Amino acid sequence: MSSVTCHIAMSLDGFVAGPNQSPDNPIGEGGQRLHEWAFATYSWRKQHGLDGGERNADSEVVDDVSQGVGAYIMGRKMFGGGDGPWDEAWTGWWGKDPPFHTAVFVLTHHPREPLPMQGGTIFNFVTDGIESALEQARVAAGERVVSIAGGASAVQQYLAAGMLDELFLHIVPIVLGAGERLLEKVGDPTLEPIEVIASPAVTHVRYRVVH
Amino acid sequence: MSSVTCHIAMSLDGFVAGPNQSPDNPIGEGGQRLHEWAFATYSWRKQHGLDGGERNADSEVVDDVSQGVGAYIMGRKMFGGGDGPWDEAWTGWWGKDPPFHTAVFVLTHHPREPLPMQGGTIFNFVTDGIESALEQARVAAGERVVSIAGGASAVQQYLAAGMLDELFLHIVPIVLGAGERLLEKVGDPTLEPIEVIASPAVTHVRYRVVH
Repeated sequence: MSSVTCHIAMSLDGFVAGPNQSPDNPIGEGGQRLHEWAFATYSWRKQHGLDGGERNADSEVVDDVSQGVGAYIMGRKMFGGGDGPWDEAWTGWWGKDPPFHTAVFVLTHHPREPLPMQGGTIFNFVTDGIESALEQARVAAGERVVSIAGGASAVQQYLAAGMLDELFLHIVPIVLGAGERLLEKVGDPTLEPIEVIASPAVTHVRYRVVH
Repeated sequence: MSSVTCHIAMSLDGFVAGPNQSPDNPIGEGGQRLHEWAFATYSWRKQHGLDGGERNADSEVVDDVSQGVGAYIMGRKMFGGGDGPWDEAWTGWWGKDPPFHTAVFVLTHHPREPLPMQGGTIFNFVTDGIESALEQARVAAGERVVSIAGGASAVQQYLAAGMLDELFLHIVPIVLGAGERLLEKVGDPTLEPIEVIASPAVTHVRYRVVH
């Protein structure tokens, strides 16, 4: 059965998004600072059709986390488009060719038909809960990995439910002071650090979630 | 001039003590879990007059952080004895021969005569603020390092005031869920990871504080 993983950038004080999130600023004030280490890499730029960037340990991590993923799961807020029933004109933040290139299952309370995009990404909207989303994602992923893409609430729910097998944290040496915390409402999971990759910009720690 | 450092164990959700701290349980519920990696080491046990323990990367870290320290600074709560004027019978948590073996400056609002202990530890009580404590500690330390021993509030004050040169975090893979957070009220410090030591129990990251 496919394993369930999540990789996410977290500030030293535990935030995965800054305060005052809005449609114009979906990761909150200062939230961009969580991702600058990735934006600077060769691999991130290549994935987004850009030249240049650093070929370093961070770049290898960016490559690593996007390989072998057979399906993604994300929360409604990460997909965006506001609360309530869908505005069908909203097709996500990522343009016509989103960087997922596989099935994406969006957790929502509001039904919507599957939305195929260019480049192989298909957004599927799941209204019957996280277990159902995971079952569907496992079928789509086959032998490959199911990745919980975010945001905080989706990761929390899968971790609290004991459905997450691996949490790969990119620990960014910044203090955001406010925003959305990752490790709240998750109970007391048993985590084992199984890999650490250090760079001058960020410390990547892969944790196995012991069931 | 001596540099100012701090090493402290922090849970993945940012706590350096558990909830419901009390005289009977000074590091709060679950707070012991922050230090189990250290208790298991050869170096910690040796420092406390005990046999056995693991000789591993964690043990080397325990050795490292206690070497070259010429003076410690700690908050009143870490020294203990309750709030308000001193009960002179209280001489700290550590018995007759505390593990510091050098000058310790205790931040307090209540004056008290210096308290020499066995093994070279002298507790000095500083009532005129963190800058004064640091000046006195620098004099005592000479060329050696001044270490901010804790608790959270003392570390926060020195970090926020730009007086800390290095923060060495032992990132423990546990979720405490509540307690005393380290990186609150510290502003937006610039931190550079300069050394990472990985073990199966904990991830040690040494950050330089950029002034």
